[in-house]
Amino acid sequence: MYRVSTTTDQRLTAAVELAEMDGQRVTVHGMIQRIRRLGWGAFIVIRRHDGLLQCVIGRDGNEELIDGLSEEQSVQITGMVKTAKIKDKSINPNSVEIQADGIQVVANPAEHPPVDISKKILDLHIDTNLDLRPLSLRHPVERARLKVSEAFAHGFAEFLRNQGFTEIRTPKIGVAGAEGGANIFKLDYFGRPAYLAQSPQFYKQMGVGIYERVFEIGPVFRAENHQTSRHINEYTSLDLEMGFVKDHTDIMMMETALLKYCFDFIRETCGPEITLLDADIPVIDEDFPVVTLSEAHKIAGGVTGGDYSGEPDLEPDEERALCSYSAENWNSDFVFVTHFPTQKRPFYTKDDPDNPGTTLSFDLLFRGLEITTGGQRINDYQEQVEKMISMGLNPDDFESYLQAHKYGLPPHGGLAIGLERITARLLGVDNIRLTTMFPRDIKRLTP
Amino acid sequence: MYRVSTTTDQRLTAAVELAEMDGQRVTVHGMIQRIRRLGWGAFIVIRRHDGLLQCVIGRDGNEELIDGLSEEQSVQITGMVKTAKIKDKSINPNSVEIQADGIQVVANPAEHPPVDISKKILDLHIDTNLDLRPLSLRHPVERARLKVSEAFAHGFAEFLRNQGFTEIRTPKIGVAGAEGGANIFKLDYFGRPAYLAQSPQFYKQMGVGIYERVFEIGPVFRAENHQTSRHINEYTSLDLEMGFVKDHTDIMMMETALLKYCFDFIRETCGPEITLLDADIPVIDEDFPVVTLSEAHKIAGGVTGGDYSGEPDLEPDEERALCSYSAENWNSDFVFVTHFPTQKRPFYTKDDPDNPGTTLSFDLLFRGLEITTGGQRINDYQEQVEKMISMGLNPDDFESYLQAHKYGLPPHGGLAIGLERITARLLGVDNIRLTTMFPRDIKRLTP
Repeated sequence: MYRVSTTTDQRLTAAVELAEMDGQRVTVHGMIQRIRRLGWGAFIVIRRHDGLLQCVIGRDGNEELIDGLSEEQSVQITGMVKTAKIKDKSINPNSVEIQADGIQVVANPAEHPPVDISKKILDLHIDTNLDLRPLSLRHPVERARLKVSEAFAHGFAEFLRNQGFTEIRTPKIGVAGAEGGANIFKLDYFGRPAYLAQSPQFYKQMGVGIYERVFEIGPVFRAENHQTSRHINEYTSLDLEMGFVKDHTDIMMMETALLKYCFDFIRETCGPEITLLDADIPVIDEDFPVVTLSEAHKIAGGVTGGDYSGEPDLEPDEERALCSYSAENWNSDFVFVTHFPTQKRPFYTKDDPDNPGTTLSFDLLFRGLEITTGGQRINDYQEQVEKMISMGLNPDDFESYLQAHKYGLPPHGGLAIGLERITARLLGVDNIRLTTMFPRDIKRLTP
Repeated sequence: MYRVSTTTDQRLTAAVELAEMDGQRVTVHGMIQRIRRLGWGAFIVIRRHDGLLQCVIGRDGNEELIDGLSEEQSVQITGMVKTAKIKDKSINPNSVEIQADGIQVVANPAEHPPVDISKKILDLHIDTNLDLRPLSLRHPVERARLKVSEAFAHGFAEFLRNQGFTEIRTPKIGVAGAEGGANIFKLDYFGRPAYLAQSPQFYKQMGVGIYERVFEIGPVFRAENHQTSRHINEYTSLDLEMGFVKDHTDIMMMETALLKYCFDFIRETCGPEITLLDADIPVIDEDFPVVTLSEAHKIAGGVTGGDYSGEPDLEPDEERALCSYSAENWNSDFVFVTHFPTQKRPFYTKDDPDNPGTTLSFDLLFRGLEITTGGQRINDYQEQVEKMISMGLNPDDFESYLQAHKYGLPPHGGLAIGLERITARLLGVDNIRLTTMFPRDIKRLTP
């Protein structure tokens, strides 16, 4: 028997700390992102946990070492931190470099990469990028996109905890889909049919009866037979549900404050990534405009010349038209659209008592794309059972879900945000596959 | 068009804040957990987002109101915060109560609950508890268990971010299982076979090449045909993987510091829950003992009288024996066991160059149960390919995974902790289903 220390510090020095360490000797490690050999020596840029670091080494006495270095080697470098002016936006910190006197190679790649990830711009066909994901994600731009995505999720959790929400984890395997329809992946569960969760909807409503306010960040699965730039078949859903609301507008207000917090959080924690990606993270200082679906149709029609009146939903071209109208006339990148018709919203959606045939539901559009669906839900047991029947559903199929209503639920509602979609809009990325680490679509199951 | 405010504050007053508001008028809401009617009026305990709150109301003028109240109603209560001495450990805050002058019922249950969740101890058969989960989780003890579980996960993420780890989200649908074997759920993926992830192992190793240190908290799926108190078929795995390790002991040291942080975090954030559950959350101030598997066999044999020498793994009775020995002789609730044999560990495990046939792997035992498996992984491409072949695997089946090794990976390793298991051990709960919100086992797919 021996003992392993509980107090050893294995914390890594962050880029912002290195920037303040001018004149200090350090030992750092990382993988070589790029090498520039010059007459007097070489610049070696290594990839660390939180960014790229520039190291320089003189040629004298290091000829063999320098000539033997290659990209994607894992190295340990010892040297002096020195002030430097680095223009390359992918390098962070850009105010210091390491003047190395020793470089030790600790691991070698077996092959040179088939694409050059040391280039400033990774100009690959999307299929190549995705086929080579374990490699392409090592590029600073790809890394930065996912860092921003994680900051959004982190901010989401932090804001909601501050607001009294409890994080929950709900099963992804179950017997029925919350959203109904055919878009469900089917599974063999010990000889019985089971399904992958399309959303945590049922469970977060149950959660309201338990914790009043709940959120979940987790994978959801949609067997949608679409191959578009805005669909993937497994994505991360950011869900919240809250009790004791007066109507859907309480949820919309919670979302505006949430987004404001998340964007501020990204600006605070992702400075280098924002610079590298040249990203425009909105500063939310205006209240969000809200229109009903029929108003939205009129406005979109005014922009495109189309006639959308009576349509039960928003088409992609309408979403874009409404967003450009909002940006120009209301100074907002965001627009809420409310009062979608009863038949277009799931059975748990609360109808508007003042506008029969419409619901207390909303979508939030951001820069041309719907990023959120939400609304008030039915909390009364009898009302829910009757709505199920009126929509052709059998309440017996939802017995365990309906326990929540039967034994009491306050008025409540919630929303879901697609993490990959909002990240794509934030960063101006056209295809949500590029804001997903390892995307799944109808053709792709690897890497 | 109208605008929805971005600045409305919907924050809920926390229990700790209410405790400091003696003499102030407040309006609170919640669901009625229990009612005690007396001659002069009634005690009404409501369930709020972060605990139970005691309210009192006089009978004069409120006769009809009091008689009409029932458990699981959703109510809004206005009144004065007053100092009180409350002995009931399930009530938090226990130093104040609300002297109510108004109670408004905002929602009613359709039926009285079939079990009495207002009792201090929810003495139900486990099947009844799980069948009625949307209701039984409203009981303070059940809520508290999951709060502690969430605090563990929250502490895990917070500690690792401080140590330079990046959170990742990896796909749960894929083509092959990291752990191999038959325990994989099979899926129809647009006409192709696909599988649910048994662990994020492959992806977190790829993540090391991208971010050096990564972690993930997410569901994993094991089609194990066991019906025991320590198996469920979908559980939450807390995973980490880190680069530039010297060997498996770096990961063990990281874990000890991590657990110390998580337990301190639980003590800081879950005071009322710990009191209610009478939980013994370890204070880690001793370094953890480490033994090899063969030493473990000897020690366990000394306790039980059995002969385990040569066994390739630890049996449950050995785990218990070793833990009781450790508690008595080494003053530790924890024991690391290292050097499991090559044939019992997955193909990505690094062999010990100094002890052929054994691996640089470990399990961590806590109070009689294995809660972590971890170790150093193979980072060299050729070494990994050769080990696959020696274990009868075809490297071509792992082509996208092996990209990570082929294009370079530093020496690395990691571990996984089962959230439900560690929570069960922490709280002294016998069956991990009771530390899971909505468990899935071979017989259970609902709620």
